[in-house]
Amino acid sequence: MTDSSTHLYSPGLVGIIATESSVSNINGGKGILSYRGYSIEELAKKSTFEETSYLLLFGELPTKDQLRDFTNKVTQFRVLPDELIIILKALPKETKPMDVLQMTVSSLGTFYNLEVSPEMVKGKKYDRDYFMNTSAALIGALGSIVAAWHRIRNGNEPIASNSSFTYAENFLHMLGVQKITPLMIRIMDATLVLHGEHTINASTFTAMVTSSTLANASQVVASAIGSLSGPLHGGANEKVIAMLQKIESKEQIRPWLDETLKAKNVVWGMGHREYSVKDPRANILTEMVQELFDEREGGVTDIFEKAIELEKACEDKLAHKGVYPNVDFYSGILYKEMDIPTDIFTPIFAMSRVSGWLAHWIEQIQDNKIFRPTQNYVGSDDRDYKNINDR
Amino acid sequence: MTDSSTHLYSPGLVGIIATESSVSNINGGKGILSYRGYSIEELAKKSTFEETSYLLLFGELPTKDQLRDFTNKVTQFRVLPDELIIILKALPKETKPMDVLQMTVSSLGTFYNLEVSPEMVKGKKYDRDYFMNTSAALIGALGSIVAAWHRIRNGNEPIASNSSFTYAENFLHMLGVQKITPLMIRIMDATLVLHGEHTINASTFTAMVTSSTLANASQVVASAIGSLSGPLHGGANEKVIAMLQKIESKEQIRPWLDETLKAKNVVWGMGHREYSVKDPRANILTEMVQELFDEREGGVTDIFEKAIELEKACEDKLAHKGVYPNVDFYSGILYKEMDIPTDIFTPIFAMSRVSGWLAHWIEQIQDNKIFRPTQNYVGSDDRDYKNINDR
Repeated sequence: MTDSSTHLYSPGLVGIIATESSVSNINGGKGILSYRGYSIEELAKKSTFEETSYLLLFGELPTKDQLRDFTNKVTQFRVLPDELIIILKALPKETKPMDVLQMTVSSLGTFYNLEVSPEMVKGKKYDRDYFMNTSAALIGALGSIVAAWHRIRNGNEPIASNSSFTYAENFLHMLGVQKITPLMIRIMDATLVLHGEHTINASTFTAMVTSSTLANASQVVASAIGSLSGPLHGGANEKVIAMLQKIESKEQIRPWLDETLKAKNVVWGMGHREYSVKDPRANILTEMVQELFDEREGGVTDIFEKAIELEKACEDKLAHKGVYPNVDFYSGILYKEMDIPTDIFTPIFAMSRVSGWLAHWIEQIQDNKIFRPTQNYVGSDDRDYKNINDR
Repeated sequence: MTDSSTHLYSPGLVGIIATESSVSNINGGKGILSYRGYSIEELAKKSTFEETSYLLLFGELPTKDQLRDFTNKVTQFRVLPDELIIILKALPKETKPMDVLQMTVSSLGTFYNLEVSPEMVKGKKYDRDYFMNTSAALIGALGSIVAAWHRIRNGNEPIASNSSFTYAENFLHMLGVQKITPLMIRIMDATLVLHGEHTINASTFTAMVTSSTLANASQVVASAIGSLSGPLHGGANEKVIAMLQKIESKEQIRPWLDETLKAKNVVWGMGHREYSVKDPRANILTEMVQELFDEREGGVTDIFEKAIELEKACEDKLAHKGVYPNVDFYSGILYKEMDIPTDIFTPIFAMSRVSGWLAHWIEQIQDNKIFRPTQNYVGSDDRDYKNINDR
């Protein structure tokens, strides 16, 4: 922090408390991430995306009846309005999936009634049904939009949602992934659980700021998608794949790393501002990558071998600095191995994180104050307007 | 501020410095707002929206050549891509104009190349052409989208942009406003100047946070539009009109005010967190309302009379608390008198504020640090996952 005349200024608001929150917690020194008090390891192994979303939104694990009702609602909203498909078909085929996601999510407020109810905002009434329906609409729609767009841009018709499938299985199904195995479904589900929430990152903060104006939930989520689309936020697992593909072989990893560190370039997927030990989500993903390769006939692929070697090399060189693999390091490898195109990785992140965004939306409007921080003005002193002929 | 264990927490980040900025400055005690050192009064009277946008974006008033080049670019981008019109026509007619604006702006990154160039971000290069083109694309498009949507939702074809008109005149023309007078154009232009920038409000802050992830400029603006759509931020001038329409007559103003204050309800358009005197923008608008009514045969309309009376009544009752009319109090009356539908007021705000958002975008990525504030965790302690049958 640098001292200004009257206040402290911390660029990026690092270390500044922006909210009180009970959604998630990070202990970066111990490598612990918990949602509503439950460790991410337990949730990734034992829970599902639907159940974890419920937990994030409402604070408690659901009973059987609650989970059934919530899942039914989400499943119902996996069927997109016809008009939305027409819009998708009207878009240029090269439109980026994150742009498509932001724009279609903006339109959801029109198809469903997502306006914030004024009673709720004054804190007079916690309208659980409203929060439930709105959240289910957005969570349900996101995966279907991503899948439908991927089909449409390739000249195919969208694949209909199958209501007997879980959210994770249905997404792989709608995306047109071939030979879906139970392990692939479990991995898809677990990665959705793992990315659901991560305290006050840039996209969640964007959601909170937008929520604080009482914008409707679709505008809130669309704003957050805008933030997530930035390469410094959501695009890292895509970059990990590109980075590993560029390195010729496992043997080239260590020389490449030396060169990269010397040039002070980024090693994608390594290190996280919040953790000084290995990101707990990366631990879970490492196991899954191994399981997925075990299931497949070809054994360990080249890219995974390079990733393992890079992790080891980084541990030798950087562990003393607290630089370990983060969640992005292995998630891309998993998606790639399941034949998901790299430009769909960040949209999948959004499909998952929407639960966290909405949890913070509910929290924000329950005890709302519009965000209006201040600035250090460092510009011109007062000056007089000059006619254009005198400039 | 309330004290937490280690940090201060200020809800809404009130009083917390979020950035160093040279775009605009407010002296709330003296009622001064300046853009890049120029007072809003001078700019509203002597400048134009195009010139003021240039000033906000690049820090200096343009020379004749610079203004001509910039204006030409903006004018060129007032012509929307055909695909965008197709998308507008595919939307349900009842789609809210702010939702339409957010979604179409999201798509602009596809039609124009708006990606952030990596060289620029590292601060190695200030790419003026890139900032110029990107800003012109967004500024140019916004007004045309708002106007085209208003035509399309009413079953009419969009009116083509006329390149011989200024931005302000062209907007009224494309919207289909009848009998456009020079005074109406001047007022439209001045209200665009007045709303262009206002330090770190919620939508500008949303733009900054989204910018900090290096999201493309269309995603940045779309996110900010999400924030502006919230009724606590952009919708106040619409609410002023509704409020004044509900009050039966000028004579009913004072009893209505007493009742409203007693019930602790909001008087829309009165008071502003940043000003303890009359908002300088409201002063300028008051004069304009008078001029507009002078030009018209009918003289002062009922709604303006009620507004004047309400201002006086509020001055008697609330001036000691620093509550005076803000910019929203009279802008709605002006727009309404020019036959602009009330649900277009906030989109016009966005058409204007986009210049401020983009000025902050340029500033942010020049010296970027991703926003990641922290939180006070107030949730559950660690707990163990329970099987669903045991809940």
